[in-house]
Amino acid sequence: MAASELTFGPRILELADRLAVHSELPGALACTYLTPAHRATAQELAQWMRGSGMAVEIDGVANVVGRYAGSAPSPKTLLVGSHYDTVVDAGKYDGRLGILTGLVVIEHLNRAGRRLPFAIELIAFSEEEGLRYSASYIGSTAVAGSFDGALLTRRDEGGISLADAIAKSGFDPRAIQSLARRREDLAGYLEVHIEQGPVLLEEGLPLGIVTAIAGGCRFVVTVTGQAGHAGTVPMGLRHDAAAAAAELILAVERRCSGVPTLVGTVGKLQVPGGATNVIPGRCELSLDIRAADNAVRDAAVADLRAEVAAIAQRRGVTIDVRETQRTGAVACSPRVQALFAQAIGRLGIKPRFLPSGAGHDAVNFGPITETGMLFVRCGNGGVSHSPRETITAQDADLAARALLDVLTAYQD
Amino acid sequence: MAASELTFGPRILELADRLAVHSELPGALACTYLTPAHRATAQELAQWMRGSGMAVEIDGVANVVGRYAGSAPSPKTLLVGSHYDTVVDAGKYDGRLGILTGLVVIEHLNRAGRRLPFAIELIAFSEEEGLRYSASYIGSTAVAGSFDGALLTRRDEGGISLADAIAKSGFDPRAIQSLARRREDLAGYLEVHIEQGPVLLEEGLPLGIVTAIAGGCRFVVTVTGQAGHAGTVPMGLRHDAAAAAAELILAVERRCSGVPTLVGTVGKLQVPGGATNVIPGRCELSLDIRAADNAVRDAAVADLRAEVAAIAQRRGVTIDVRETQRTGAVACSPRVQALFAQAIGRLGIKPRFLPSGAGHDAVNFGPITETGMLFVRCGNGGVSHSPRETITAQDADLAARALLDVLTAYQD
Repeated sequence: MAASELTFGPRILELADRLAVHSELPGALACTYLTPAHRATAQELAQWMRGSGMAVEIDGVANVVGRYAGSAPSPKTLLVGSHYDTVVDAGKYDGRLGILTGLVVIEHLNRAGRRLPFAIELIAFSEEEGLRYSASYIGSTAVAGSFDGALLTRRDEGGISLADAIAKSGFDPRAIQSLARRREDLAGYLEVHIEQGPVLLEEGLPLGIVTAIAGGCRFVVTVTGQAGHAGTVPMGLRHDAAAAAAELILAVERRCSGVPTLVGTVGKLQVPGGATNVIPGRCELSLDIRAADNAVRDAAVADLRAEVAAIAQRRGVTIDVRETQRTGAVACSPRVQALFAQAIGRLGIKPRFLPSGAGHDAVNFGPITETGMLFVRCGNGGVSHSPRETITAQDADLAARALLDVLTAYQD
Repeated sequence: MAASELTFGPRILELADRLAVHSELPGALACTYLTPAHRATAQELAQWMRGSGMAVEIDGVANVVGRYAGSAPSPKTLLVGSHYDTVVDAGKYDGRLGILTGLVVIEHLNRAGRRLPFAIELIAFSEEEGLRYSASYIGSTAVAGSFDGALLTRRDEGGISLADAIAKSGFDPRAIQSLARRREDLAGYLEVHIEQGPVLLEEGLPLGIVTAIAGGCRFVVTVTGQAGHAGTVPMGLRHDAAAAAAELILAVERRCSGVPTLVGTVGKLQVPGGATNVIPGRCELSLDIRAADNAVRDAAVADLRAEVAAIAQRRGVTIDVRETQRTGAVACSPRVQALFAQAIGRLGIKPRFLPSGAGHDAVNFGPITETGMLFVRCGNGGVSHSPRETITAQDADLAARALLDVLTAYQD
């Protein structure tokens, strides 16, 4: 397909470039919750939404909500959303791709004077990455009605509470609960997102249909062995904490390999105060286990706990495993998955179903309405949370066309 | 044996307690090169040596040298030594046991009015642990004639050069080379040392005869893989630097197990900036390989380098292995080993020959004179470089009796 035939893709990339100008850092993208860059991004998005025929407001947690009215006075609203905050030194597409894809599609409908039988609310969520308050999803939980009010007293690194930050931005923190949508008003929730992984890239496919958003367990693991002199303790008399940790790392890798959607990661690893000539007496590591199915994940966790016990016993060390987080998997709506599959098929592309290992705003809507997600191929090996994150105009174009198709099919 | 029958042991432990009073830290032992605590320790040792019939001087690098004259005007001198400096939060016996064992034996000879046909020089070496100038053996290399003059310009953490520190203590750094003994004047070098490991403890033996002091290689290893999102990169597409490091750690353990005297240790280990939800893109570790025989060690290093290459290839990561240190093994004199074995046999104990995995002042004398070492059982699981380091009065007594026997056998 020649670039000139692309209706949506080049404009999505151009808008992503323009949004990325608002940053806390010179020469790199950082857009953290309720910073000046964050407010400037919201203003720009609001302006673009207005230009596309939407009634816009910035709500009490700084979500930018654009409402594209339906053809009939239907009580139902279809939500299309993703987030506009970013990590530090971020890519331009994580979160924003979903907002901009929705924007160009509504722009297209508006230009054609076309209304759907339900309203569309395009929501640019203000907070998903969890950086400033170590709490993800401030924006989408407010809309989904699951915002945790206890977070309001939490303070950022500068000592500013979430309530104060919201108040200083001109909003009323006490009004957050009023942002919740009523389930009976919702027709569904759709989110387009960059994959943040290499699966579609490896398979040469531009789009993927998300089946479920994985639930995860996180653990802090501490191995306590016996320190000793690296020269004087024979191998057979050692209780080396790092060697025990090494066995566990390989056990995690082995147990999680070959099981669809299951992944296990030891991301933190260190021998505190380690020295070249000292046998490690202690080793600390993190463990993250995820799967699209809670039972698959829990079976892996149970097997690994048994493995931990066996390693500890065999090596004469103690291994403390402390669970620090557990979230359930959220399944996507089969009906919405089928709509995406039909749309992708009509584009001449093989529908590829895959789970999302990362969390997304969509997890908050799965429990309250029919929820679907579309993944877009990620370039550069699937790198994410990095300025090297990339997509092509062709792939963005296909994503917008698939979303448009699903929106109009929803009309049926 | 009843405590009342112990000639030497209780006094050795008492003197070790008294020496440990001189410390840089309240409630813990630290005696670093040329600190006030170090000088006070030297003065106390000098006084004790004088009280045992020795002519004493504190030499130009702060070694305390006590000369117990021989019965005849022999040109030969037998050296008996170990070090009086310590690590921070040290045990009381590492180094000092060897000095004090020599002291009580000479005290015994002096009280009996007994002279040997050669002089004995009991040397309390001033520096072995290498803390202040990241250089070990300042004391014993000066006496052995292998002091590295380039160290004089090296600075400690406070910016004081070794030359300045020596000058401020009233010595002349330019005169260090003059401290070297002539080979033809030496009858040998004997050192008693706490084992610093669990071998004798495990075997229920109080004493051990050192066959060789292991040579070691040290490496800094850096694994570079590919960072990625812990949720979105399937197991089969990962290039996890920590998992590669784990394989290497277990390969080191496997290769070094079951080969006499060979030990391999990964003491430092970390994923820099690791996060629970990020697949490690980098992992840094140290590697320390030692054996009593250079060929045994070098064969292990060669095998592990091949293993590293295989792991890197299989996992699609790069592993950089940089050698930072290499010291050759030093064999102990077979004649002195036999003398110790006879002495131990006469005490009714099974002679146990074992290598030293740790370095000792003796390594500097191996190349220039007949050198022997006697190990004493270490309590508390063999813990070393810790206030939990311990020996019993019984074992110290046996060590002194064995040393006395060897000294008198040397006379034959």
